Amino acid sequence: MSSAPASQPLFDRVTFIGIGLIGSSLARAMRKYGLAGSIGCYTTGDGSMERAQALGVVDSIYPTAAEAVAEADLVVVAVPIGANAACAEAFGPHLKAGAIVTDVGSVKQAAVRDIGPHLPPNVSFVPGHPIAGTEHSGPDAGFAELFEGRWCILTPPPETDEQALAKVRCLWETIGSRVDVMDPSHHDKVLAITSHLPHLIAYTIVGTADDLEGDVKQEVIKYSASGFRDFTRIAASDPTMWRDVFLNNREAVLEIVQRFTEDLTALQRAIRWGEADTLFDLFTRTRAIRRGIIDQGQAYGSGIAKPDTPE
Amino acid sequence: MSSAPASQPLFDRVTFIGIGLIGSSLARAMRKYGLAGSIGCYTTGDGSMERAQALGVVDSIYPTAAEAVAEADLVVVAVPIGANAACAEAFGPHLKAGAIVTDVGSVKQAAVRDIGPHLPPNVSFVPGHPIAGTEHSGPDAGFAELFEGRWCILTPPPETDEQALAKVRCLWETIGSRVDVMDPSHHDKVLAITSHLPHLIAYTIVGTADDLEGDVKQEVIKYSASGFRDFTRIAASDPTMWRDVFLNNREAVLEIVQRFTEDLTALQRAIRWGEADTLFDLFTRTRAIRRGIIDQGQAYGSGIAKPDTPE
Repeated sequence: MSSAPASQPLFDRVTFIGIGLIGSSLARAMRKYGLAGSIGCYTTGDGSMERAQALGVVDSIYPTAAEAVAEADLVVVAVPIGANAACAEAFGPHLKAGAIVTDVGSVKQAAVRDIGPHLPPNVSFVPGHPIAGTEHSGPDAGFAELFEGRWCILTPPPETDEQALAKVRCLWETIGSRVDVMDPSHHDKVLAITSHLPHLIAYTIVGTADDLEGDVKQEVIKYSASGFRDFTRIAASDPTMWRDVFLNNREAVLEIVQRFTEDLTALQRAIRWGEADTLFDLFTRTRAIRRGIIDQGQAYGSGIAKPDTPE
Repeated sequence: MSSAPASQPLFDRVTFIGIGLIGSSLARAMRKYGLAGSIGCYTTGDGSMERAQALGVVDSIYPTAAEAVAEADLVVVAVPIGANAACAEAFGPHLKAGAIVTDVGSVKQAAVRDIGPHLPPNVSFVPGHPIAGTEHSGPDAGFAELFEGRWCILTPPPETDEQALAKVRCLWETIGSRVDVMDPSHHDKVLAITSHLPHLIAYTIVGTADDLEGDVKQEVIKYSASGFRDFTRIAASDPTMWRDVFLNNREAVLEIVQRFTEDLTALQRAIRWGEADTLFDLFTRTRAIRRGIIDQGQAYGSGIAKPDTPE
């Protein structure tokens, strides 16, 4: 155990509840930057915690959530959103005084609703959402650089301890993320359009293609080196995680789907009636949004060298 | 002028009608592989042919389409689809006997309809569509490697001269493409789903975002490192080209939009009523399509090192 403050880890004992793509990437990043004295893990019996241990991503695994959190200074909940409540209920009473609980889920009102009530008053809850990921799942898919240059949004309840918030912020900033703090409902509204709607649409269009007659379907796969290819990548994302996102951000997603459908219907009508100017004006307007994103330095994901949108 | 067959270019004189992203990429590729003795160009007065000449992409430019094609062995029509008919009408009577005319447009029935009737009987027409591109436009955006490893679909009318077809096939294969021959209506149906619908949806969703209230819109741009980012890239594609695609592949696009909308409505309903299994089943099914694409080696565009689909 180190005694010099400079070499002391940010958290002595860290426990992950769930260790898939995001959890295992965060564990790897915490190791890389020496942010955890030791890393424990508990998951339900899907074999991922054993795999994470074999990979060296975590030091120890536990037979129950209660045992996993008992000594932890930081507990990271990284399970599909739908499992949050049951997990928190199981480990909540066993948290040690002064512990910090955080999560990494894509819907923040649901995290506040499902995890918050199960935590004792002497524990701090700092809900978080790293806006990063890949279409791959499981502990093998994680990598320490996943969060570099990406946003992590924290949505602490008003009563959250300032020091706990500062430590979680420090964690994300140390591993290369930019951190913003906002209200959970605002987060859910913004993410409904930047992330949830695009995933819903990608799943839909790939499903539509999957329903095509045999020969056309085969050719859609064969010639997919075009816009469709990007959609299939998005639509290969983890089914459990995304099912839970849609069910738990229902209101914001349905509101934005409604707007989208109205806009698509208007465009469909413009195509049917040959309204060339309507199409041209929209297609010109959308270029400006892209320029805004490029200006913000968020144009490409980490590791993408050269973009390509085939016609 | 070379006399040894081995060093003789595939085409002595080539002329491009239109020299944007695709045209200038093809011209560069033909130069790279020594496929053209000389390359000429004509465009309407938007400055792109002068720019292409300054870049060294073409050798000569012409004041009219008629003069540009007069000596050409191969004429490549690379203008937005809506300009095909006027271009072909202007240069058709001036083609030399035995010339080959091809195009690179994204809708093949429209090419057959708009270019074919203007060509004299002693000329061969081999419509083509390289399934490649980027969201950038103009002669500066082109590069010789754009077509490497990508499909080029040729849709020759039944009466097309076999030798002309073989030469156009040879052109695309030499610059690194894989070539398939199919019926134009079948092409248009397949591309409606692999390319046209994804673009239409990307334009729509980015337009929906652009209509959001000021602060949310700014945050959508700020946190766009997620599914939305991919859509903005697609929705930055050339407005004129895409307007013409939708207006000229109207029937196939409207048919697939209709199917898509029905599927989206079903999914919307499943979210509203909390039908978890419906969502999970679809999200699992769509993963299989992605695996099919990965198996076909079409998973990523050229130059994309590592994919990333943020949550």
